Amino acid sequence: MTRYKVILEYDGTDLIGWQENAQGPSVQSLLKDAIEKFCGARPDIVGAGRTDAGVHAVGMVAHFDLDGNTDANTVMRAVNFYLNNAPVSVLDCTVVYDDFNARFSCVARHYKYVVLNRSAKPVLNKNRVWWVPRKLDIEKMQIAGQQLIGKHDFTSFRASQCQAKSPIKTLDSCRIEQDGDNVIFEFSARSFLHHQVRNMVGTLVEIGLGAEYDIDAVLSACDRSAAGATAPASGLYFIRADYATDD
Amino acid sequence: MTRYKVILEYDGTDLIGWQENAQGPSVQSLLKDAIEKFCGARPDIVGAGRTDAGVHAVGMVAHFDLDGNTDANTVMRAVNFYLNNAPVSVLDCTVVYDDFNARFSCVARHYKYVVLNRSAKPVLNKNRVWWVPRKLDIEKMQIAGQQLIGKHDFTSFRASQCQAKSPIKTLDSCRIEQDGDNVIFEFSARSFLHHQVRNMVGTLVEIGLGAEYDIDAVLSACDRSAAGATAPASGLYFIRADYATDD
Repeated sequence: MTRYKVILEYDGTDLIGWQENAQGPSVQSLLKDAIEKFCGARPDIVGAGRTDAGVHAVGMVAHFDLDGNTDANTVMRAVNFYLNNAPVSVLDCTVVYDDFNARFSCVARHYKYVVLNRSAKPVLNKNRVWWVPRKLDIEKMQIAGQQLIGKHDFTSFRASQCQAKSPIKTLDSCRIEQDGDNVIFEFSARSFLHHQVRNMVGTLVEIGLGAEYDIDAVLSACDRSAAGATAPASGLYFIRADYATDD
Repeated sequence: MTRYKVILEYDGTDLIGWQENAQGPSVQSLLKDAIEKFCGARPDIVGAGRTDAGVHAVGMVAHFDLDGNTDANTVMRAVNFYLNNAPVSVLDCTVVYDDFNARFSCVARHYKYVVLNRSAKPVLNKNRVWWVPRKLDIEKMQIAGQQLIGKHDFTSFRASQCQAKSPIKTLDSCRIEQDGDNVIFEFSARSFLHHQVRNMVGTLVEIGLGAEYDIDAVLSACDRSAAGATAPASGLYFIRADYATDD
């Protein structure tokens, strides 16, 4: 048996998300279909994050096991060949030790959220951004974003269906930058609650449009209704996962 | 009568190109449809460039005339409203003097071409790049690109259906840069021949993959078969048009 670590890009627009279920194509199901066509096996695929429908990735990390010891490059080429026109692509594949786990060995996860802040609708980046036509106050969002950093009970930013054992998470960084007509939000943490990034962005954008939220009060309320609306999936990207073994 | 100058973004993937004809939706036909819904008129629309099917724009410039003197912002909002889900968006609209002509007043045109240079197929940038899986030698392409700059007879890079009066053009700049997995080509000139950018990129990419072209010899051959193949439309973007009146 050999364990493979893969780096994935995917366009979540037409997917039901990371997780395989009967509702439609998912990252897991498309990868399993491709692996099955290649070698007949349909292994479990463990990802660093379980993204929702419509969420994209440019560097999702996952692992799976295959019998034998096919070299990593052959596995990558074969899986990409059978992925064919699916909206998933394997960017890199390496053989790792059996104790590597894409989910549990992960020490940091990095997400990016892209808002298109201009009056005209997105055309080239349709389904790739959240279109916010009214002008955002970047500085107000940056000040509020700084207050989210650190160890907090993030219940106010947690989806009701979240399965995490604890709502206490440590947000390591929150950067907000203007890049032409785009506003880019970057978040890093060991792990995130379900919808945490989208709920933080939704709240920050409301602040950028003039809403008066006191982030400390929102956090200490421990009540989802104290924060802003959930930002759409289309602007969210899983960027990178870090592992201690990367050093 | 009022003359409007507009800046356009469009996704050329599902369009037959700039020019209106019976074959399918074009930038011109979609704009005319939207203007007609707004005010009943179907004016000629003159563009700085007439891009082919599949070619995109982030800053195409065009002009058209409408009766009356509706303010530019109202025209922009109305046209964008009626463009609805069409892959065209008006980014800016201004009232200009009657002697402004998006095509004939233009003093410089800027194009960008994006090559995705990695082994895995594009997913998020499908239809937005030319996928070249084999590693390109950037420096070789940069050296060859420098030889294209200047005033030349570009017959070797000219489409057979090109309608320009003269094949002699002056290429003002050619920049080639690596940006992550992308290789970005940027070209500026007062005007270009039909397919000139795609034929230059096609030739440069062959050079980047190891082909031995002598650009001076290719130019002086004045023969389309002396240069490389035409690069696909999907990687090409009309970026900007400059006007003397912009000063």
